[in-house]
Amino acid sequence: MTSLVPPESIKPFLDSYLPQPKPNGLPFVTLTYAQSLDSRISVAKGKQTVISHLETKSMTHYIRHFHEAILVGIGTVLADDPKLDCRYFEKASKKHPIRPIILDPDFKMRSLYNSSTMKKVNAQKPIIFIGDHVVIDEVIELAVVPLPLVNGQMRWMDILKALQGMRIKSVMVEGGAKVINDLLVYEYEGKHVVDSLIVTIGSTFLGSQGVEVSPSRGLELKDVSWWTGERDGVMAARIG
Amino acid sequence: MTSLVPPESIKPFLDSYLPQPKPNGLPFVTLTYAQSLDSRISVAKGKQTVISHLETKSMTHYIRHFHEAILVGIGTVLADDPKLDCRYFEKASKKHPIRPIILDPDFKMRSLYNSSTMKKVNAQKPIIFIGDHVVIDEVIELAVVPLPLVNGQMRWMDILKALQGMRIKSVMVEGGAKVINDLLVYEYEGKHVVDSLIVTIGSTFLGSQGVEVSPSRGLELKDVSWWTGERDGVMAARIG
Repeated sequence: MTSLVPPESIKPFLDSYLPQPKPNGLPFVTLTYAQSLDSRISVAKGKQTVISHLETKSMTHYIRHFHEAILVGIGTVLADDPKLDCRYFEKASKKHPIRPIILDPDFKMRSLYNSSTMKKVNAQKPIIFIGDHVVIDEVIELAVVPLPLVNGQMRWMDILKALQGMRIKSVMVEGGAKVINDLLVYEYEGKHVVDSLIVTIGSTFLGSQGVEVSPSRGLELKDVSWWTGERDGVMAARIG
Repeated sequence: MTSLVPPESIKPFLDSYLPQPKPNGLPFVTLTYAQSLDSRISVAKGKQTVISHLETKSMTHYIRHFHEAILVGIGTVLADDPKLDCRYFEKASKKHPIRPIILDPDFKMRSLYNSSTMKKVNAQKPIIFIGDHVVIDEVIELAVVPLPLVNGQMRWMDILKALQGMRIKSVMVEGGAKVINDLLVYEYEGKHVVDSLIVTIGSTFLGSQGVEVSPSRGLELKDVSWWTGERDGVMAARIG
């Protein structure tokens, strides 16, 4: 396997947005995704869509290299069957371990995991957050963490505190749209929990039928920087 | 009045996207607008929203300098009461004349124009495209062009041919969302009529209640370039 190496100019651009220890001990949260100009992350629900150019795909793996965990919703697993690994490494023998975290209220991974690409290629077993209503009456090989659901959803602070309990110091949240839209507006004790936001904008329109990222209310960003490549623009910022 | 001067680096970036004579004699069409990351051009219908930084606002006036006309829908006039002038000029005494074009099926400008900012500041009288159902039984001072409506809408080719008849060689289309979304997908004899697309992306989220740009179907772009400033990214491209 060859390392996915991003353009050199991306590294200084990303530098100040990479994880740092947080005084409160919670994991550092990086939210990152690729969208079209019209803010779509796929052409339709459940349809994997390539938006970003290779140079920004390699950036994603470079960013993963600095994180201990990568988090997605179950919808993304169903749509993309993703590897959730890190394909940026300095030596082929030293692959960076990154722990997949799946938000999966109804525990669909129970039947999915064995045939997933993730299982084949990723030595790190996922941690699966499930709703506390799910009954598990058999021996399972998967690491599950039951959490209470409020209006059908897990609370981000419950997730982050559970990750903190597992000594996970940084998590990269990558999708899908529901996870992104929720996390963008989520606040705990009046504060956003996203530490860095990195958005790749592909120079294409996916059209109004696509799956959209747009939070339920407006948001101000600060510490904004842009990097641009051959086809894509990348914006990095902090929220608030 | 002082000239709005854009950053020097914007000029070479825009160079290849500026109007050129077209072999078919139709006006050169530049479509340009400013959106948030989540592809909103305003926080709500009818609400003027500042998205772009001064540096990209000045870019808009610089681009206007190369056009003979500027086109918006009546919704934009109602929401923003815009000047529709060009505030980039080399000498204060030589303001670049730019002709406002308003798409106004029901001729709302009839009662609006006299109290508009456009009338106060812009020496160029607008040309108003109205539906051919509108009855005009009085003497009016405004230049109106009646066009047939198809499903309540004017056809872009009728508009462009009318502009061609007026010897207008370039038009900059700036909004609102309905005009942008229609024009992005409009084709005449299998060809897009937009010659250059210039999109400013402000580093902010306006939220899902905002007025959205997203065409009814996906679109591929070519000849893509990016420019980035302090807060905004700008993508220029051609369609198809």
